[in-house]
Amino acid sequence: MENRTEIGSLGEFGLIEHLTKNFETHQVSTVVSVGDDAAVIDHFGKQTVVTTDLLIEGVHFDLMYTPLKHLGYKSVVVNLSDVYAMNAIPTQITMSIGISNRFSVEALDEFYEGVYAACEKYQVDLIGGDTSASQKGFIISVTAIGEVTPGKFVKRSTAQKGDLICLTGTVGGAFLGLTLLEREKKIYLENPQVQPDLENESYIVGKLLKPEARKDIIEFFEKNDIVPTSMMDVSDGVSSEVLHLCRQSSLGCRIYEEKLPMAEEARAAAFKFGLDPTTCALSGGEDYELIFTMKQEDYDKITLQEEIAVIGYMTDLEEGKKILTKGGNTFDITAQGWNAFQK
Amino acid sequence: MENRTEIGSLGEFGLIEHLTKNFETHQVSTVVSVGDDAAVIDHFGKQTVVTTDLLIEGVHFDLMYTPLKHLGYKSVVVNLSDVYAMNAIPTQITMSIGISNRFSVEALDEFYEGVYAACEKYQVDLIGGDTSASQKGFIISVTAIGEVTPGKFVKRSTAQKGDLICLTGTVGGAFLGLTLLEREKKIYLENPQVQPDLENESYIVGKLLKPEARKDIIEFFEKNDIVPTSMMDVSDGVSSEVLHLCRQSSLGCRIYEEKLPMAEEARAAAFKFGLDPTTCALSGGEDYELIFTMKQEDYDKITLQEEIAVIGYMTDLEEGKKILTKGGNTFDITAQGWNAFQK
Repeated sequence: MENRTEIGSLGEFGLIEHLTKNFETHQVSTVVSVGDDAAVIDHFGKQTVVTTDLLIEGVHFDLMYTPLKHLGYKSVVVNLSDVYAMNAIPTQITMSIGISNRFSVEALDEFYEGVYAACEKYQVDLIGGDTSASQKGFIISVTAIGEVTPGKFVKRSTAQKGDLICLTGTVGGAFLGLTLLEREKKIYLENPQVQPDLENESYIVGKLLKPEARKDIIEFFEKNDIVPTSMMDVSDGVSSEVLHLCRQSSLGCRIYEEKLPMAEEARAAAFKFGLDPTTCALSGGEDYELIFTMKQEDYDKITLQEEIAVIGYMTDLEEGKKILTKGGNTFDITAQGWNAFQK
Repeated sequence: MENRTEIGSLGEFGLIEHLTKNFETHQVSTVVSVGDDAAVIDHFGKQTVVTTDLLIEGVHFDLMYTPLKHLGYKSVVVNLSDVYAMNAIPTQITMSIGISNRFSVEALDEFYEGVYAACEKYQVDLIGGDTSASQKGFIISVTAIGEVTPGKFVKRSTAQKGDLICLTGTVGGAFLGLTLLEREKKIYLENPQVQPDLENESYIVGKLLKPEARKDIIEFFEKNDIVPTSMMDVSDGVSSEVLHLCRQSSLGCRIYEEKLPMAEEARAAAFKFGLDPTTCALSGGEDYELIFTMKQEDYDKITLQEEIAVIGYMTDLEEGKKILTKGGNTFDITAQGWNAFQK
């Protein structure tokens, strides 16, 4: 970076103006945008969907291997993913950041380039936020807002016995990208002369650093008149999310190991790191795919959609939450729970 | 505190469930609340208002003299204030927190007691959020959502020349509360044996630690058929906010020092601390009063409302932004800008 402009030289309002001056609005629902006490949205008879996420440096991301532009992009995408997971279309976001003065205006510009790219790609408007000093580290808080035709939203708690469990795309890649980058970071810290070789690993690194939200699948549902019976996005890992759907719907499930969709690049990386691919697919988080259930009679509607795999079905609660392995064994599904506080 | 339950013992979902289990919804517009990927709101033809704030320990609050319950209450209220400042009614909030493990579940319970009290008082629903570990300090991100009859929202940029500038309640109190608590903190740090004497200062301390949002004024507007021509809430200080209204409406203004509403308790505290009361009234922030402009012909509608003071009027841009002192002098209004980065 050639220039370094101190954040303090702009002041709060100068900074907000600087960061948001190139944002154009895409949505007719955006009535009042950045620059007032609050933004105003008119969803014209549709229901409004709201979700929020807090991302903290050192907890959710590591700036040692996360480019700021990617971080900006991902901060938006992970929130949009939650809106899609309600079978809704995201329309606006607010973005608040807390920054220490080790960040320059140029660094924030990079971050906002990523925010801007995600807003463009998903056609959402940045309508507000807050810019604050932090005592330590970079803090990001995003709220995403969307719209859904009244009653068409899809919750986690409404799966029925016999429903097919479906998964979009592939899983495990982001976790393997994280494993690789953490390994390279450790090598670098021990010996800064060694340059990381990420050449052949762009797939898994990309899955971690620049995930996409499954807008295409929600559009596919709309076009093919599919309303899933329950749905959520895969942020913590497939097994964790399957257990959520079961618990919130008061059902059990049967999952087939051989049906878990995994990219060849991710499978190869798992072998290289001496990890079990299935464990990566089940417990690796941050893939931002969608997991959903649907009625068996809708199966014909998805057979030609390569981005959707049927991985199992819902059962009675009493039948438990089981996975059937390739070897023919049956195990209970366990979640590698979120446990940042017990680390 | 007698018990200390470690946050890690509950896990993320256990923690969220624990913290939100007593929240009941008040609003018919809340269709889906806590517990899914996103919440769903139906404002039934009204427009949706959205605002967000990030509050960071050591930057926005000091836990040495801020009780957690008050902090929870205030975190909600400052966001509701932004919704009211749009002439809208808040209906929902999301609350995200980042916490280090120095906080126990009991400490968070105290914080949420305050959140709960504010939600009850203002009849808003807590519909979502995020709970995360932080590396350092307590981080709070609130998004408030509200509703407004289409087109009835009030922006900052729509004041007209000749409009009266009005202020609700009194100002300067919160700043004097902060001055007092910072002074007592310094004394305590120098000599922990000295107990602070806050007995006669409950007014200014209360203004800082437990502010209220001006719901009553928005209801008064509705009842009396008043639509301000511009409005915002007073978070940074009267002079700073007046300058915002002027800049965003491309106008000048004339303010009268003698008209600035200040509580007797605040005035007395200013004298005690050797501060100029007018400076406190103009530059002290965090009062969360409303500043608004209205047509002169609406004046009769507010004469009986003791909570509204007319402090000046809008002028042509060329006439500048001026304050007329009690002594008959005229000065330019300057803002004590936000400058967390230059400290």
